[in-house]
Formats: sequence, structure tokens, C-alpha cells
Amino acid sequence: MQALGRVFTDLNAATMASGPAPYGLIEDAAIAVVDGQTAWVGRAAELPVEYADLARVSLEGRLVTPSLIDCHTHIVHGGHRAEEFEMRLNGASYEEVARAGGGIISTVKATRAASVEELVAQALPRVDAMLAEGVSVIEVKSGYGLDRETELNMLRAARALSGHRPIRVVTSFLGAHAVPDNYKGRAEDYIENVCIPTLKEAHLKGLVDAVDAFCEGIAFLPDQLVPLFDAAKEMGLPIKVHAEQLSNLGGAKLAASYGALSADHIEYLDQDGVDAMASAGTVAVILPGAFYTLRETQAPPIEQLREAGVPMALATDCNPGSAPMTSLLLAMNMGCTLFRMTPEESLQGVTVHAARALGLTDCGQIARGLRADLAVWNATHPAELSYRIGFNPLHTRISGGNP
Amino acid sequence: MQALGRVFTDLNAATMASGPAPYGLIEDAAIAVVDGQTAWVGRAAELPVEYADLARVSLEGRLVTPSLIDCHTHIVHGGHRAEEFEMRLNGASYEEVARAGGGIISTVKATRAASVEELVAQALPRVDAMLAEGVSVIEVKSGYGLDRETELNMLRAARALSGHRPIRVVTSFLGAHAVPDNYKGRAEDYIENVCIPTLKEAHLKGLVDAVDAFCEGIAFLPDQLVPLFDAAKEMGLPIKVHAEQLSNLGGAKLAASYGALSADHIEYLDQDGVDAMASAGTVAVILPGAFYTLRETQAPPIEQLREAGVPMALATDCNPGSAPMTSLLLAMNMGCTLFRMTPEESLQGVTVHAARALGLTDCGQIARGLRADLAVWNATHPAELSYRIGFNPLHTRISGGNP
Ligand SMILES: [Zn+2]
Ligand SMILES: [Zn+2]
Repeated sequence: MQALGRVFTDLNAATMASGPAPYGLIEDAAIAVVDGQTAWVGRAAELPVEYADLARVSLEGRLVTPSLIDCHTHIVHGGHRAEEFEMRLNGASYEEVARAGGGIISTVKATRAASVEELVAQALPRVDAMLAEGVSVIEVKSGYGLDRETELNMLRAARALSGHRPIRVVTSFLGAHAVPDNYKGRAEDYIENVCIPTLKEAHLKGLVDAVDAFCEGIAFLPDQLVPLFDAAKEMGLPIKVHAEQLSNLGGAKLAASYGALSADHIEYLDQDGVDAMASAGTVAVILPGAFYTLRETQAPPIEQLREAGVPMALATDCNPGSAPMTSLLLAMNMGCTLFRMTPEESLQGVTVHAARALGLTDCGQIARGLRADLAVWNATHPAELSYRIGFNPLHTRISGGNP
Repeated sequence: MQALGRVFTDLNAATMASGPAPYGLIEDAAIAVVDGQTAWVGRAAELPVEYADLARVSLEGRLVTPSLIDCHTHIVHGGHRAEEFEMRLNGASYEEVARAGGGIISTVKATRAASVEELVAQALPRVDAMLAEGVSVIEVKSGYGLDRETELNMLRAARALSGHRPIRVVTSFLGAHAVPDNYKGRAEDYIENVCIPTLKEAHLKGLVDAVDAFCEGIAFLPDQLVPLFDAAKEMGLPIKVHAEQLSNLGGAKLAASYGALSADHIEYLDQDGVDAMASAGTVAVILPGAFYTLRETQAPPIEQLREAGVPMALATDCNPGSAPMTSLLLAMNMGCTLFRMTPEESLQGVTVHAARALGLTDCGQIARGLRADLAVWNATHPAELSYRIGFNPLHTRISGGNP
């Protein structure tokens, strides 16, 4: 008996397979899908006879890409910071904002006050915005709890999202996001007494897919992160890091020495760090939304990363402070406009390289044996996805082969 | 007999009325709507008895603003320029792009090749994106024809949009957008032989609401625009101008001397120009999308405009070259982030001041006697509309009082 499946026809497929064709683009393509996986992709004229009897679905000349992957988000969090945004623009000083309870602490407070259900409810409209742009996988970090219970709750909320929406969630434990007030000046103790025990518990409960940390003068120094990364290694959990965003402390190099999946932000990364990432196969996750919001002037070393062959991903960094942003398509445009990434690099950054930044091997390309999670666009060429600003050309999401 | 109407309750109303309250904000408000107009807005507890019997619609605590107005768009045009966008990012020189047929000329070519119906069909997805963000009025310019027939067709297409979607369209004749190839070096002749006669014909046909021009070294010098503006004045048509975007030629001052509705872009406007606009009551239309795309570094003189009391509007500039952008909400965020406008200025910029930039007096605020065109948001405070990036919190559009 013929397995359940269908053949999508009348389409251009940006398969994102490496090779001579930019975007792995196949024009006049067909995609055969069987049991939720891509069974075959190629020129329609060359469709193997074994798929000839499957039901056909015409996509009327549209562009098909792998569905998108947002590999760096803080989409689960309590409250928002619109008031603080307005205060600053109305001329309030840093002290005035802090006195009014602004900054990351305000998000920690709102997140601690929320139940898992409330965290889920607040995240869902943001998830919906991503689904509407053809996103099928998101990474979600903890890090606004900074205490055992809330860090666990954030991870529980992240896992719960998949029960409410057709989205796949990959979690990162980011207990080392900031030093909480009660550990001020004792970052090492916070790592030892709170972060590592909470990570262990979360891992036992199956809540953690990777371990992340914020390596920066205002957060944790590389040396302070070593015990955390060692603990992650012992547990067999992969590492990610927020590094070199505001200064060059060598966080990316440290993470690369652990074979990290990714180093993220990296505006101030130097050649030494680039080389370390290249050797380790660590993905550079570029976050133009935070660069834009913070009005930074130092762009990440795109040219050096390109030269060294470091795979570049692009993500929203969706968070209530430095990037209250939910549009991965806009991140693609910003990657091109602000950082001179090419449209091909930008689409790789939200598909094949984003999958790699999450350690996923079953998505991010249109290829035999991978999940048939596809995005169908009202566009003919993939450059259009990066070119437009604040416009969503998605026509249909195809999930496991089902429109 | 009681006139047809309803009362919206359980809402916060950002009326945008001037006065002591930022945003003209009324909390716990009610809005009484009769015959498509706002009959009353105020504190719900103070609803006059004459509206007490009207049907009530609870908006469940949501924020209500006037529906949005995009007062500067080139939303009607043929084709797109994604290829050129990609060529540039792949390192092509200006000459290579030009040789490949890029630049404004490629849009002129595609626009000339399109029928009115095709121009409408291509614009509708962009209009839909705007409707989805609560926009109810758009300005649409001609200017990609640069010949009689195509300029007329663009204006016909702009007018036709209202027949396809619940959108109000205000047109501007922008024949003086660029000097076409066949008039190279003879800008004056083009104004005399093509622009003015076409404007007259378009005006007779009822296709024109205002006259616009691009005053810049690469387009038209102020002196060359005088005959066009004189002709507009004779016809009783108001004037707008693209000015001081790349250099300071005094275009805004010239336009102000004609009592122009607006001067747009104005990154290089000097104090003299600011004063001229203030005296004339000319609105400054700020276009951060083009600034962002062109990676400009000279921001418009927001502080001087604010000091001088020049009303500031914000718009998408939606066009295929320097701003392939359809999100007015994103323009609001960019106004704040890139130009340090306040969230209140940014909301004024897409409501009350945008109406003024179009010479409209029946919209842009929630006030007695104005059209009851409202936007209902999943938000509680108007600063949230500027704060988020690439997220659309619209809950419902209310058009003439009807959800
Ligand atoms: Zn982050
Ligand atoms: Zn324009």
C-alpha cells in the first residue's frame, strides 16, 4: 500500500541545501511528502515515478522555503516595559528610570508575580505573531526569575506553549542572566547556590535543552561562568552564550572551548574569537533588533565571520527591554540593512543555520528525510523576504506535510 | 425617534485632543456614536442621558485611538526592487545596478507597463497590510509615470483602491518626482510640457487632491518648481514637497511660502526652514523608513521643530526603492528609536497631525462631530503602540461607528 503523502507542485523551492545554486534554489520544483517528511525535492519534470500517484497540490508558482526558526528569544516573560520606553524618550535619566522600578528588575518582578498559566497567556500573542510569519520552531530562554521557582516556571511555560499552538519549542536555561539583588557582588555564590542546583533540577524534570549565560561586565565574567559550563557539560547539555555585546570579554571563546552551539550578539567579537568559533563549529547568532533598539554603533564582524566560515544565524531576541520584537522577517531585513548580510545569508540565518544553533538536524532545509515543515510565500524569489519591511507575504504554513 | 447609534464602553480613549492630558487620554471612557460620527466622548460615569438608551458595546478595558492615517505613500507602483536590493548587498557597484536596469527607472518601466487594474491588484496586498494595523486613510502619490498617460493611470488606480477596500484615499500628483530620460537636462521643459498639462487634466478629471514635488539636486531645484506650484495655486490645489532629504536646497521654505500642507523628509532642514514652516503652519512629515533603508546619519531637526511648534507627522513612505515598508506602527517605533520622538508625538504623527498634513478636518481625533473611525487595541496605554517592534496589537477597526 502506498504511504500517506502528497506532492506539492508549481513552486520555486529555496531548499537551503548547500551547493552551487544560491539558496539551494530549484525553479519549477516539486516536493513529495510522505509521513510528515520530505521524501523528494527536485525539478518537477524529474519527479520519480514512485510519487506519481500521490495527490497533487498546486502552489501556483509560489516560493517555498523551510519554515522559519527563531533561535534566540525571551518570549516568555511577565509584563512589558512601554512605560520605561516612554520615560526615557520623555527625557528621564537612568536614575529616574531605575527609581521608578525600570530595567530588567521590573521584568523579574512581573515574571515572579505571574503563574505558569499567566506566563503562557502573555506569551501566546507573541507566538501567534511568529506563527503568522511562517515560524515553526522557537528557542525560549528562562532568565527573568533569578530564583529557583521562577526559573522552573519559565521553562514550564516555555514547554507548555507547544500544547497551545503548533509550535516546536527548544528551551535554554538562562539562570545566569543577571545577578539578583540578594546576591549583589557575589556572582560566584549565585552561580553555586542558585544557578547550578536549579539547572540540575530543571534538567531532571526534562525542562532544559541547553544552558545559556550572559557574559558581560554588567552580568557575569567568563571565570564566573566556568563552574556553570562545567556543570552543563557533566549533564551532557549543550552551551550557548550571550557574549561580546557591549565589550569584548572573551565569552564567545570560552563558550567555543566547550563546543558551544552558539555565541549570540557578538558585536565586539575580535579575530581571536572568530577563529575560536570557526574551530569549534559554533554558530554566530546575530541579533539586529537589540542593536537597533539600543542604538549601538559597533556592528558584529560579519565580514570576518564570513571569511572564517562561521555559520551565521539571525533571531529576534524577543524580549521586553532591548528588543520588544516579534518579527523574524524584520530581523532578516535588519540583518541586511544594518549589517550588510546578503539576503541569502539572512534566509540561511533563520533556517539551516538557526537549526544548527539549536542542535536540530531534522529541520531547516527542504531535504529528503527532514520534517516537511514548509512556508509558502506570496513571492517568487527568496530575496523578497529580506527586502520588504514590516510586510508579511506568508501564504500558507505546511506542518508535517499538512497545509 | 432616536438616531441610529451605539455607545462603546469599558475603554481608555486616546482622543488626541490637545489639552493637559497627554494623548488627550481619558481613562474609563465611553464613546457615543451616532450616524457614523462621534457624538460624545468622555468619562463613562458622565455619559449624557440622551445617549443612555443606545446599544452598548463593551471593549473590555482596551485602548481606543482614532484610526491611523498614513499621510505619505507611493503605494501604487509597478513591480518591486528585491533584485536590486540583493545585487547591492552582494557587492554590486552603483554602475552595475544601473546597467542591470535598477533604480527608479526600473519602477517607472514596470509602472508604465502595468494597466490600471494591474496597479490596483499589486497595491491591494500592501493596502491590506495597512488595514490590518488600523489604518483608515492613506495618501497615495503618482510619480512613477513621468508621462501623461501613466501619471493619470496611477491616480486612477489610487482612487480605485477605495472601491476594493474600506480605505479612504487622498491623492497627490507627483509628476515632478524625477526628470525622465527624454527630458534629461531639460527639467524646466518637462515641468512646462508634461507636468503642468498633465496636472491640469488630472485636476479636471477630479483625480488630484494636492500637488507634490521632489526638490533635490538629483530631481528638481526650487526655481524649477515655481511654475508648477504657481499652476497648483491657480487651480486651488494645496502643495506638498519632498525636501531637504539629502541636502538643504530650501525646498521646504519655498513650499511654505505657498502655504504648503507639508514638507516631507527634511533631514537637512535648517532653522530658517523650520521658522518658515512654523509661520506657514506647514506640517513636518517625518519618514524614518527611508532614513533607515538608506542608512542616513543626519536626523531631521526634531528638537528645533518641537521648539518652533511645527506639527510633526510620521508616515511609511511606502515605495519600492528607499522604503518597501507597509507598517505604520513600525514607522512609529522608528520615529522614537531613530529620531527620539516621544510616543505621544509618534501617535500624534499618525493621527491628528497626519490629518492636518492632508488637509483633512473630519478625522485624526476622537471628538464630537468627527468621523467615528476608531482603532481598538489589545493594549491599555498608547505608549505600547510605539514600544513594540513588528507586532500588531490591533483588536478591531471601527469604521463610521461600525466594528
Ligand atoms: Zn538574549
Ligand atoms: Zn516619498
